[in-house]
Amino acid sequence: MGAVPETQHPELISVAHALADAAAAAVMPYFRADRLTTENKAADGRFDPVTEADRAAEAAMRTVLAERRPDDAVMGEEEAPRRGTSGLTWVLDPIDGTRAFMSGLPVWGTLIGLDAGQGPVLGMISQPYVGERFIGGLGQCALQRDGAAARPLRTRACADLAQATLFTTFPEIGSVAERQGFAEVSRRARLTRYGTDCYAYALLALGQIDLVIEAGLHSYDIQGPQAVVEAAGGRVTSWDGGPAHHGGRILASGDPALHEVVLEILSRVE
Amino acid sequence: MGAVPETQHPELISVAHALADAAAAAVMPYFRADRLTTENKAADGRFDPVTEADRAAEAAMRTVLAERRPDDAVMGEEEAPRRGTSGLTWVLDPIDGTRAFMSGLPVWGTLIGLDAGQGPVLGMISQPYVGERFIGGLGQCALQRDGAAARPLRTRACADLAQATLFTTFPEIGSVAERQGFAEVSRRARLTRYGTDCYAYALLALGQIDLVIEAGLHSYDIQGPQAVVEAAGGRVTSWDGGPAHHGGRILASGDPALHEVVLEILSRVE
Repeated sequence: MGAVPETQHPELISVAHALADAAAAAVMPYFRADRLTTENKAADGRFDPVTEADRAAEAAMRTVLAERRPDDAVMGEEEAPRRGTSGLTWVLDPIDGTRAFMSGLPVWGTLIGLDAGQGPVLGMISQPYVGERFIGGLGQCALQRDGAAARPLRTRACADLAQATLFTTFPEIGSVAERQGFAEVSRRARLTRYGTDCYAYALLALGQIDLVIEAGLHSYDIQGPQAVVEAAGGRVTSWDGGPAHHGGRILASGDPALHEVVLEILSRVE
Repeated sequence: MGAVPETQHPELISVAHALADAAAAAVMPYFRADRLTTENKAADGRFDPVTEADRAAEAAMRTVLAERRPDDAVMGEEEAPRRGTSGLTWVLDPIDGTRAFMSGLPVWGTLIGLDAGQGPVLGMISQPYVGERFIGGLGQCALQRDGAAARPLRTRACADLAQATLFTTFPEIGSVAERQGFAEVSRRARLTRYGTDCYAYALLALGQIDLVIEAGLHSYDIQGPQAVVEAAGGRVTSWDGGPAHHGGRILASGDPALHEVVLEILSRVE
């Protein structure tokens, strides 16, 4: 399945907002709460908190989908995949940026992607504390904020790496080879900032920054942001220029010409 | 001059809010604007943008002070100090976190401190896009947000460095010796996050994180945040345990017991 018939767009967009509503209602009581129940799900001892909020939000979103989209598949961070028959898959990350969430920093987001079989056709990054929803695909391309006019999303032109602003979750993640590849791009860029998780893709779609480089992503980390960035005119691929929607090593660029420059560096990483 | 008479508190608090109002009105048209006029003020070629917004906001705040507090001194990032006769000095940083500002990331802030001669007695961190004001001192200790009930600020207990969350602007700044001292603390902490500028002090006062470590600060970078953190129960000193309000190397802790543990490490840095 490739394109989604236009007659279905309003319903699918409405469902995406209902998912963001459900996730926000589940998550916000935990954000900046005095005590937060966390546990460590990483077997290797890395700090990788999963919160009650994460699980509650995914459960709330799955309840919405069971009711409104029973024939669609669901893939989320917390629960087992649900199969579907429609050819559409909702790809959910209830809280992307758990470390930001745990620290009270409002740059985490709820990620919602809709995969029609060859990658996302609709995506949303929702930041409920700030009240922002970045949505792209199926004719949508806007930042919607509580009480404000919608703002169209549009990446900015910046073909020169020496002028580019780069965001990343490095230096926290990645293999040695991946960090070296990243470091070469960073050295040639104008400015590098760290640890912003999904919010970096929102800034890319807003035309405020030029590059996001990450590694070790899951499909639910990237499908929502990918659709938003692509709708805004940017490019999102793996480090070797292949499809991004399976996750792994991700390069996202506001300017397609800059994307080629950085691919040339990152595609050499083993 | 030490303590400020209680009868003066309401007026001084009102002035702080008027300063934040004036700065927000001057700055917000530039935040996430399509084009931002910047120039490089650093002689050594480092990336250190100063925006039109920065200057406009400081000018707007100085206009408020000239009218409402003509006898107070003023020290700001952008203009020459103004002398006063009252013993009170307003210490202003119109946009702390210019790189965040330039990137569209809403974790920059307008910093307002009121120095009574021996450090700040009142401080505010204002983040106008999110609509937050963190205020501490002269009987105030709260997060005030547009349309929401005020939330009292209170640092959290965390005496054990191995359990602590550390925020910093490193690895971007600092001498080699400073980075080594920071790295030793970071290695022993539970979680380190980078590049959050003044917003880290707000999270510390909210009881969401445990430590902020910085170097190379100016007095206007620290006086506002210092008053907020101290009002919330935290400690703010230089790395050798001396006064913080002159700037330089800064350690801020939510738990005074943790402060002693980290001072023991940082005080060895040459």
